Amino acid sequence: MRLRFLTSASRQLRLSNQPCRHRLLGTSAAQAGQQQQDGSKGNQNSRAFNTTLYGAGTLGGIGAGYWLFNELDKKRQQPLEQTKQLTTPPAAELDAEAEARLWHKTKRSDLPTYSVEDVLRHDKPENGIWVTYGLGVYDVTEFAPNHPGGDKILMAAGNAIDPFWAIYQQHNTQEVLQLLESFRIGNLNKVAAEDDDELSSPWAQEPKRHDLLKPTSKRPFNAEPPISLLGEHFYTPNEYFYVRNHLPVPTLKPEEYELELEVESGPGQPSRTLSLDEIKKLPKHTVTAAIMCGGNRRSEMTRIKPVKGLSWGAGAVGNAKWSGARLCDVLQAQGVKPDERLHVIFEGADLDPTAHPYGASIPLSKALDPRGDVVLAYEMNEQPLSRDHGYPIRVIVPGTVGARNVKWLTRIVVTDHESDSHWQQNDYKGFSPSTDWDTVDFSKAQAIQAMPVTSAICTPIPEERVKVDKGYITVRGYAWSGGGRRIERVDLTTDGGKSWHVAQLEQENVPDGRHYGWSLWTARLPVSDEQQKQPNLEIWAKAVDSAYNVQPEAFEHIWNLRGVLANAYHKVKVRLI
Amino acid sequence: MRLRFLTSASRQLRLSNQPCRHRLLGTSAAQAGQQQQDGSKGNQNSRAFNTTLYGAGTLGGIGAGYWLFNELDKKRQQPLEQTKQLTTPPAAELDAEAEARLWHKTKRSDLPTYSVEDVLRHDKPENGIWVTYGLGVYDVTEFAPNHPGGDKILMAAGNAIDPFWAIYQQHNTQEVLQLLESFRIGNLNKVAAEDDDELSSPWAQEPKRHDLLKPTSKRPFNAEPPISLLGEHFYTPNEYFYVRNHLPVPTLKPEEYELELEVESGPGQPSRTLSLDEIKKLPKHTVTAAIMCGGNRRSEMTRIKPVKGLSWGAGAVGNAKWSGARLCDVLQAQGVKPDERLHVIFEGADLDPTAHPYGASIPLSKALDPRGDVVLAYEMNEQPLSRDHGYPIRVIVPGTVGARNVKWLTRIVVTDHESDSHWQQNDYKGFSPSTDWDTVDFSKAQAIQAMPVTSAICTPIPEERVKVDKGYITVRGYAWSGGGRRIERVDLTTDGGKSWHVAQLEQENVPDGRHYGWSLWTARLPVSDEQQKQPNLEIWAKAVDSAYNVQPEAFEHIWNLRGVLANAYHKVKVRLI
Repeated sequence: MRLRFLTSASRQLRLSNQPCRHRLLGTSAAQAGQQQQDGSKGNQNSRAFNTTLYGAGTLGGIGAGYWLFNELDKKRQQPLEQTKQLTTPPAAELDAEAEARLWHKTKRSDLPTYSVEDVLRHDKPENGIWVTYGLGVYDVTEFAPNHPGGDKILMAAGNAIDPFWAIYQQHNTQEVLQLLESFRIGNLNKVAAEDDDELSSPWAQEPKRHDLLKPTSKRPFNAEPPISLLGEHFYTPNEYFYVRNHLPVPTLKPEEYELELEVESGPGQPSRTLSLDEIKKLPKHTVTAAIMCGGNRRSEMTRIKPVKGLSWGAGAVGNAKWSGARLCDVLQAQGVKPDERLHVIFEGADLDPTAHPYGASIPLSKALDPRGDVVLAYEMNEQPLSRDHGYPIRVIVPGTVGARNVKWLTRIVVTDHESDSHWQQNDYKGFSPSTDWDTVDFSKAQAIQAMPVTSAICTPIPEERVKVDKGYITVRGYAWSGGGRRIERVDLTTDGGKSWHVAQLEQENVPDGRHYGWSLWTARLPVSDEQQKQPNLEIWAKAVDSAYNVQPEAFEHIWNLRGVLANAYHKVKVRLI
Repeated sequence: MRLRFLTSASRQLRLSNQPCRHRLLGTSAAQAGQQQQDGSKGNQNSRAFNTTLYGAGTLGGIGAGYWLFNELDKKRQQPLEQTKQLTTPPAAELDAEAEARLWHKTKRSDLPTYSVEDVLRHDKPENGIWVTYGLGVYDVTEFAPNHPGGDKILMAAGNAIDPFWAIYQQHNTQEVLQLLESFRIGNLNKVAAEDDDELSSPWAQEPKRHDLLKPTSKRPFNAEPPISLLGEHFYTPNEYFYVRNHLPVPTLKPEEYELELEVESGPGQPSRTLSLDEIKKLPKHTVTAAIMCGGNRRSEMTRIKPVKGLSWGAGAVGNAKWSGARLCDVLQAQGVKPDERLHVIFEGADLDPTAHPYGASIPLSKALDPRGDVVLAYEMNEQPLSRDHGYPIRVIVPGTVGARNVKWLTRIVVTDHESDSHWQQNDYKGFSPSTDWDTVDFSKAQAIQAMPVTSAICTPIPEERVKVDKGYITVRGYAWSGGGRRIERVDLTTDGGKSWHVAQLEQENVPDGRHYGWSLWTARLPVSDEQQKQPNLEIWAKAVDSAYNVQPEAFEHIWNLRGVLANAYHKVKVRLI
């Protein structure tokens, strides 16, 4: 069912482990040999530990490795399958492998110490590419072009590879660890930053986050995963599902949790309180819904003209299966009747410095519609909600901007007006490109509810060197539209729209109007000989939804002062190899 | 409530009749005098009727008229109010007015005879501007720049003014008739074309249409009104609501009319038949809905690259109040239950040459949703449906492309598949710009249901000379989005998007999600001194709907081989005066 995109090299790593170990070992040893010949790095010098084992494991392979490296270089243009025929190198010893796993956890006294900031400055080929793993600092500038996973290595440039290797398990071999250690240039000076909060600080109870999440803001915590990882899973893994917090994360004890329900307007019993157990005893409903931040892709809009807001890339979105009680069941049991003039206000347990909660509202018509699929969710992809995602209860309002999907939900009010919260009234609204902070009147615009159609290219990433395979490149991404509108088509072009290619879609078989999940897509795009001669290739993606709404071409005419609704064509410039 | 746009001159005509009569008479007589001095038209020569009266009415005014004309010419740059001070001309006699009403109905033997085609060739200033009224042919080339209603006169260029004067009643005065007769150059050779059908022809029973409707195809009849008229009425007058017929118009007798209802799939009684009376006895529901042809604005898309289809302007849309029985009531009474896998097929009484009816379908979820507002309509703007609009019953599917709003409805089927009609399966679908007739596979695209957001500028029209009023011009148009999405904003620019101006909206106060009517809008746009020096000014309009979907900028990247979904920015080039 799932169409999973991997570069041909990394696909081979997964599908055919044995030849890849060979190939990596070959490269590893070869690279080490190369550097020894250069004499430039000095990282084959004496070390404080395991010299013998290191020698047995690494130096033993140098001769064959150097030969292999040259062979690989010669055969780079040939299909990868042919490299399987190369000589098998000496088998590595099991003990040596166990020892290799300790290297990056050990400080090497023969090497200098660098700070996180030192490493961060080496985040692109021009500056040199450094990465860290455990306590080790590594210069992989020269290795990067030969990385079997291609430019995915750049995701970690200037940063830790730990979270990536936790996902790409093929790195956890002695050969790869040997190769890495051969690039070692120093030790990381890890400071236990931000763990020094007083217990009374509102930030003292923040949860531990996955290292893959790149923060756009640390307090409140806001972070997105690397976009190329995002496109690999139809259901975004919970641990690196983007996080959008407006305030400190509250700590709610399940046994003390209470959800207040009030009916201020219209028929219905005026109030009741639901415990977590009572919510869980209601019929369980699961809906697949992508949740997207109103500011997703803001960093692209900012390039036209600065906007106010967190500088999100295209990763402030995730797709998950949410399970919980249906809000329409809860409201109907309370005696609430359809009335299109009414609203449903949600409040969270997260409080601002004046003790006001985060709040938002949606029309009652959405809340009461069984096809609206609004759920009081306690599970995300079949796991209990994590604290960052609203434990114990988050309201999921499918098809609607993330800001209305209130986390740590503690109060629901049926009433005749929208939420008066900052986030409903003075934020998350769209304006004309000519509206500025002097002329803006937030009361004149509608609070964002359903989101417009959008798409993004997940792989390749900008500046990535992309291999042309028999005249084609493979491009992969996501597309989504709000309001339950299914994605009808994703078109791609590499020639500024002279020719368009229709992507293959991966989406759930859910009726339109209730199609709240995203679609992943894959396209093989032909590249001409002429294009291969150019230094760059720009790929554009545009999605069309079931109402045949289409993304606007550029940010210029949809720019708005808050940088929301940034849904222009996604354009990624790559280099062909 | 209604914001009605009129040019300042025509507004004055309506609001202040007396001074305008003076002004028109002044112009009339002046114009006649001017032409007599030129000696070029020869239309002050002897005529076969009413010479005396004509002389009394027209020639009597020449002296004062000529003076007035010069005065007007001198004062053209002054505000119109100042012209009210001009000398009052001689009062016209009542008898003379009655006689004047006969002139255009009478053949003048002193003048040549022209065909409709002769007139049609004189449709723009470069070719001379001719119009007809009754039997008269008139050359208004020199008068057009002084027309108090501005370039609205160009709507009738090369054509009959009869339908326009039926609307703009201020023309029905002796003075105006005198002025017109002074431009007479001939008699119209009216051929009773197309009335010669055999009674057995399927076209023999076509209804009489309003002359304002400009046909894009005569058989089947397809026609739209002039767009500048369209923007004048929030509820489009029935008589010039656009007509989209796919086949000959059937003749249905109300007493014999039967609507078959079949439930092929899902629960429900298998079939029943409803008479017109039975439908009218059901609760009457009224919904305001704009109906738009899938090919509206196709003529703009065609300029990029030819497409197949009728060359519609931006007038293949209209907004009306539709009244009838709710389809959800009829289906529920039949025992039909919600099931998102099912469809509702509609068939009309209009038959193709193989006796197959026009057909289309919609999802059952739309048909059963009370907020979907699908009605079996027998009234349009509180009048019985006309034959061209589906008498006696048309299904109105608000928010959905016109093609699913089946006219002359005779059969409804609840079933597990879409209609297999040509119009559902092989037409009214969108494709990528690179899909051509060699590669198209209609089974791969979704039938259009909800339409994307769009807008159009109704006034000024292209090439119109627009008066700058204290540094501003006034622009007016419509905007609409499918699926019940309210129009949130309409932005206008006159400098290619460097600055945008937000229009004032006129729309019904109906909740979003169920906002099926269109919005009219008006904007006052500043024009700079620099812009006033340029020969042209291009105005762009773009609408944003409640899901913050926005129109695409240009047709290039939304082009499709059927020319449907033509919703790019509307761009109109005008001349400033």
